[in-house]
Amino acid sequence: MEYRFSNYVERLQSSAVRDILKLTQGKEIISFAGGLPAEELFPIDAVREAADRVFRSGKNTLQYGLTEGFMPLREQLCARMAQKGMHVQPDEMIMTTGSQQAIDLITRVLMEPGDIVLVENPTYLASLQVFNLSGLDVVPVASDKDGMIIAEAERLIKQHKPRLIYVVPTFGNPTGRVWSMERRKGLLELSHRYGVPILEDDPYGDIKFDINADYPTLFSLEGKADGGNVLYTSTFSKTVAPALRTGWAIGSRNVISMMAKAKQAADLHSSSLDQQTLDQLLRHFSLDDHIQVIRQAYGDRMQQMQKLLSQQGWSDVKWIEPKGGMFLWLELPEGLDAEALLRAAVKKNVAFVPGSSFYAAEPARNTARLNFTYTQGERMATGISRFAEALNEFLARR
Amino acid sequence: MEYRFSNYVERLQSSAVRDILKLTQGKEIISFAGGLPAEELFPIDAVREAADRVFRSGKNTLQYGLTEGFMPLREQLCARMAQKGMHVQPDEMIMTTGSQQAIDLITRVLMEPGDIVLVENPTYLASLQVFNLSGLDVVPVASDKDGMIIAEAERLIKQHKPRLIYVVPTFGNPTGRVWSMERRKGLLELSHRYGVPILEDDPYGDIKFDINADYPTLFSLEGKADGGNVLYTSTFSKTVAPALRTGWAIGSRNVISMMAKAKQAADLHSSSLDQQTLDQLLRHFSLDDHIQVIRQAYGDRMQQMQKLLSQQGWSDVKWIEPKGGMFLWLELPEGLDAEALLRAAVKKNVAFVPGSSFYAAEPARNTARLNFTYTQGERMATGISRFAEALNEFLARR
Repeated sequence: MEYRFSNYVERLQSSAVRDILKLTQGKEIISFAGGLPAEELFPIDAVREAADRVFRSGKNTLQYGLTEGFMPLREQLCARMAQKGMHVQPDEMIMTTGSQQAIDLITRVLMEPGDIVLVENPTYLASLQVFNLSGLDVVPVASDKDGMIIAEAERLIKQHKPRLIYVVPTFGNPTGRVWSMERRKGLLELSHRYGVPILEDDPYGDIKFDINADYPTLFSLEGKADGGNVLYTSTFSKTVAPALRTGWAIGSRNVISMMAKAKQAADLHSSSLDQQTLDQLLRHFSLDDHIQVIRQAYGDRMQQMQKLLSQQGWSDVKWIEPKGGMFLWLELPEGLDAEALLRAAVKKNVAFVPGSSFYAAEPARNTARLNFTYTQGERMATGISRFAEALNEFLARR
Repeated sequence: MEYRFSNYVERLQSSAVRDILKLTQGKEIISFAGGLPAEELFPIDAVREAADRVFRSGKNTLQYGLTEGFMPLREQLCARMAQKGMHVQPDEMIMTTGSQQAIDLITRVLMEPGDIVLVENPTYLASLQVFNLSGLDVVPVASDKDGMIIAEAERLIKQHKPRLIYVVPTFGNPTGRVWSMERRKGLLELSHRYGVPILEDDPYGDIKFDINADYPTLFSLEGKADGGNVLYTSTFSKTVAPALRTGWAIGSRNVISMMAKAKQAADLHSSSLDQQTLDQLLRHFSLDDHIQVIRQAYGDRMQQMQKLLSQQGWSDVKWIEPKGGMFLWLELPEGLDAEALLRAAVKKNVAFVPGSSFYAAEPARNTARLNFTYTQGERMATGISRFAEALNEFLARR
């Protein structure tokens, strides 16, 4: 038969990142495209031991679990959140299949087709997919190196009456930028003045290169979960491993409870084997020490990539040194189309993500996102030299 | 702040089953309420060994996976499906977080708010939640012990022009009924005549008490995946264990591909640790032998429960002996309200699910679903005697 699809899913573009990942699987391509953590740093022995402890604790560990998530893990996570100034109770938290599902569930409980969401420009690609799948209208807010421009946000709030503001204030994807304190407070103030909730997506906050730097979350500035304006989500995908697909959301009790209702319908609960394994991991393994190892390694790799790019001596290729996270955001010469550059690059066996994927409206086509966490050493040098070869051919033609 | 919620989620009732599960956690209640498999039968040693093989195969097992699911597992599942007359390629299959997520994803890609879905009456509670969350109008079709009444289905298709027909033809939840071959073929014919796709939900098909009985799936009768009218979903939750939260859907390639796009937004992918563990389990453990053990045990428990109920000598409490699955569906005397009975039963420390939860429209209030898989022996006898005490008090008052 001829299937007729929902208009929302018809409009949905397949993620360029995921499609490139598929194309490059098993090939000799060096990829700076995916947002992949360094595999050699995965604490696999600790995870194996944690899983083993779960299995040995009894057969009932394999039974159905609570929709809200495994309670002992939520309790441990609340204690970790408190160390970062985020004070929250287990019933103000829900475990999700990655933080991606938290974005989807929050969208489903707060919004209906035709509603408006405000986002940074550019912003996280897969959040745009969630908003499109739910039939929302996405309005990008002009943003610079310090975050959303607050006056612009206010103008657009007045104009569009959005139901949600979605932001990644710390080491955003794709730009790697860190919002200034002024912008953080400014957005929070707008949220209160106009009664618009904020969804703060924070997958990268732990991966800061300067251990003494302090970037308070909007959630901690808001100062309360229940009745507060900020819904916050994070994940173990970058600090432990993505395969365990475990994220969480915290926020006002009534929102969390609505998310649980939606999640009952969406998938009943996330893998409880994964959640119990993470619970055991947190009890017998210093995740904070491990995060320190990741910070150091990723900081080194970012420096290596920066150095390799600098050595090319391009005068009109620009970037801001990331203070954390996983990505370097390049501004290429005006007029250069990064999607065409990608096609040329893939022929030379190197991949990245053209920046155009990350814009809700008119894209800056001369931008590119390079991941610096998945490759290192010789392999990174070879990859950047292939990338440079492709880019130099483009520049020579101008 | 005051949060405003989507009308769809506002209308969503929390699942009575889940709420009862919560209330009874850690208490001395004997529960016939949940759809819980028998914990003592979980093949935990085999699962532990399978997980261990995954961990020992290398750190890249903890990396991000494909949205469609772990390919070697899909290949093995295709071979298993073929043994049941369901011929399907790996790219006509997507792995999901339980079959619950398959229902949600199919709903999201095929339908928009206001669209109509036809269901059996009564039907699986959590499917109703999915349809409500997506803002659909649910139209129940009169059904008897042999399945949907085909003439009624045709009348309602003509009247409402539904976008989907959702059915559980083999050991349905809550009724345990098995559709006759005539009804299976009849519905398939309607699907073709009127161009309405069928979603066949089959979590219990493997759990048949008569090993020689053959209940062909609608998908096998349709005879093809690509371009075919039947979308089929099943799960490992009942045959291996729920904690691994792994289900799958098969069907026309374009539907599967749209589901993958939606799943990218919904959660990127399901736990790949769970999927890889199941892949290893299928390679080193005879799941078919294990299913045989489950069948035998569940068949025995069903017989025990039936015997315990029969011994009460009630003249106006009726049920049909289930040929498989996990539930016994009771018709209580006319006029008796099973929700009131539940409140009385919980005071006597026994729980079940009132049948009213499973109706999309006007419920038969004098019905109840009893699970016979989670308890056995003395405990089941005690539970049924508590249930009988509560019911006898109700009957005495009439």
